[in-house]
Amino acid sequence: MSLNSIFQYFVPKDKKVFFPLFEQAASNVVAMATVLVEAVNNNNAATREELFKQIDKLENKGDDITHQVYLELGKNFITPFDREDIHALASAIDDVADNIQGSANRMMLYHVEEITEPIRKLSDLILQASIDLEKAVRELKDLRNVRAIADSCIRINSIENQADYVFDRAVADLFLYEKDALKVIKHKEILAALETATDMCEDAANVMESILVKNA
Amino acid sequence: MSLNSIFQYFVPKDKKVFFPLFEQAASNVVAMATVLVEAVNNNNAATREELFKQIDKLENKGDDITHQVYLELGKNFITPFDREDIHALASAIDDVADNIQGSANRMMLYHVEEITEPIRKLSDLILQASIDLEKAVRELKDLRNVRAIADSCIRINSIENQADYVFDRAVADLFLYEKDALKVIKHKEILAALETATDMCEDAANVMESILVKNA
Amino acid sequence: MSLNSIFQYFVPKDKKVFFPLFEQAASNVVAMATVLVEAVNNNNAATREELFKQIDKLENKGDDITHQVYLELGKNFITPFDREDIHALASAIDDVADNIQGSANRMMLYHVEEITEPIRKLSDLILQASIDLEKAVRELKDLRNVRAIADSCIRINSIENQADYVFDRAVADLFLYEKDALKVIKHKEILAALETATDMCEDAANVMESILVKNA
Repeated sequence: MSLNSIFQYFVPKDKKVFFPLFEQAASNVVAMATVLVEAVNNNNAATREELFKQIDKLENKGDDITHQVYLELGKNFITPFDREDIHALASAIDDVADNIQGSANRMMLYHVEEITEPIRKLSDLILQASIDLEKAVRELKDLRNVRAIADSCIRINSIENQADYVFDRAVADLFLYEKDALKVIKHKEILAALETATDMCEDAANVMESILVKNA
Repeated sequence: MSLNSIFQYFVPKDKKVFFPLFEQAASNVVAMATVLVEAVNNNNAATREELFKQIDKLENKGDDITHQVYLELGKNFITPFDREDIHALASAIDDVADNIQGSANRMMLYHVEEITEPIRKLSDLILQASIDLEKAVRELKDLRNVRAIADSCIRINSIENQADYVFDRAVADLFLYEKDALKVIKHKEILAALETATDMCEDAANVMESILVKNA
Repeated sequence: MSLNSIFQYFVPKDKKVFFPLFEQAASNVVAMATVLVEAVNNNNAATREELFKQIDKLENKGDDITHQVYLELGKNFITPFDREDIHALASAIDDVADNIQGSANRMMLYHVEEITEPIRKLSDLILQASIDLEKAVRELKDLRNVRAIADSCIRINSIENQADYVFDRAVADLFLYEKDALKVIKHKEILAALETATDMCEDAANVMESILVKNA
C-alpha cells in the first residue's frame, strides 16, 4: 500500500484525465487488430497493402495518445494509481500497437504473396486479445469490477498460450513441408512478429494485474 | 522503504501462505530441468519423447501453483513483501517453467534426431541455474541469510553468461560446419529456446535482488 | 510519491556515491559504441578484430561498475531514489553494454568479412543513443533540468524507431537480393543484435522516465 493509495481516500482522484486516454489507446489497438484481420483475409495484394498502410496511420494516432499520457503525468500531482503504473500501462498498450504495426510492416516489406492459415489464426488471436485488453482497461477506472478485469487478464494469458501453440506448430510445419530455406526464414519472421503482438497483450495484462494487487 | 515494510514491524507477516507456494514452484522448476537433462542424455528417441511429455505435465502443475499465488494475493491484505513483488516473483518462476517446456516442445515438434553437445551443455546450465533459484527462494522467507540469496543470484548471472557463450559458439559452429540451411535454422531455434530459459532464471534472480535491496 | 521522496527533504542525499558510478557506466557505454563505430568503418579485418577485443575489455570494466552499484545498495540506507530504481537503472545501462559487446562478438564469431551499410548505420544509431543516455544520466543528479532528461529520452525513443526501420529494411533487402540462405541468417542475426542494443537504450530511457514521473 503506497502513499498514493492513502491519498485516494482524501483527495479527488484525477480520473478524468487518464482513463479516457487509456480507453482511446485500447480502442485504437482494437481498430488496428480489426484492420489486420481484414487484411490477412483479403486475397487482393493491392487491397492488403492499402489496409496495412491504414494500420500505419492508426499506429501514429496511438503514439500521440501515449505521448499525451506522458505529458499529463508531468502535470498532475495526484494520479489515480502510482505514477509509475500509469507510465507502465501506457507503454504496454503502446507496445501492442507497435507490434501489430511491425507484423503488418514485415508482410509488406517481405512481399509475402501467400497469406497462410497460421498467419490468419494468429491475427484472429491478436484481435481477441485486443478486445479483452480494451474491456479490462474500461473496467480499470472504478476498480469495482475487479473480477471482470482479472477474467480478461486470464483470457489474454490463455490466448497468448494458444498463439504460442499455433506459432510452434506452424514453424514445425515449415520445417517439415517447405524445402526453400529463404521462404522458411521469411515466414518464421512474420509468424514471430504476430506471436510477439500477443506477448505484448500479455505484458499489458500483467501490468493491470499488478495494479490490481497493489490497489486491492 | 514502503509502508508495507513499516507494517512488517507491527503485524504478523503472512509467510505461511506465500513461501510454501514459492518453494513448490521453484522445486517444480528443478524437477523439470532434471527431466530435461535426463532426456537430452538419452539416445532413444521414444524414451526422450516420453520424458518431454513428463515436462509438459510438470509445467501444468507449475501453472496451478502460480495461479494459487495470484488467488492468495487477492485475499491477503498483509503480505511479506510488497504485493507487486510477490506477483513479479511468481511470474518470473512461471516464465522459467514455460521456457523449459518450450525448449522440450521444440525438440519434439521439430523432430530433432541428433541431440548435440551444445544442447546438452545448455540443459546442464538450466539445471544448475534452477538449483540456485530454488536455494535463493528457500532463503527468502527469513531474509536473515541475505548473503546466501545474493550469492545464488550472482551464480545465476554467471551461469547465464556461460549459456550466452555456449549459444554464440554453437551458432558460429553451425555457420562454419553445417551447410544445410534448414538444419541451421532448426538447431538455432532450439538453442535459442534453451538459452532463453537461462535468461528467465536471471530475470527471477533480478526480482529477488530487487526484493533484497527494497527490504534490506 | 514514496516515503523515500519524503525523506529527501530531511536527510542529506547520498548522491556522492551513486551518481559518479552511473556517470562512469554511461561514459563506458559511449566508449564502447565509439569503438564499435570505428570498427565497422575499418576495412582491415585484423584491425577490426583488435577493436572488437577492446569492446570486450570495456564490457568487463562496465561489469565492475555495475557490481559496485549493487554493493553500495547493500550498504547505504538512504538512497537518492527508491532503491529498486537505482538497481533498475544500473541493470539497464549494463544491458546496453552487454548488447554492444554481443553485437561485436557475433561479427567476430561468424567471421563476417563484409561490413554492410545497414551494419554501419545501426552502429551509428547505437552511438547516438549512447550519447543521449550519458547526457540524461548526468542530468539525473539534481533533477533540476527535468526537460533535458525528458528530451534525451524522447530522442532515444526516436533513434530506436529509426533502428527498427533500418533493421526491417535491411532484412527485406536480404530476402530480395541475397540468394544464399546461410548468409541471410548470419546477417539477420548480426543486424538483430545491433538493433537490440538500441532497444536496451530505450529500456534505460524508460527507467529514467519512470524515475522522473515518480520524483516529479
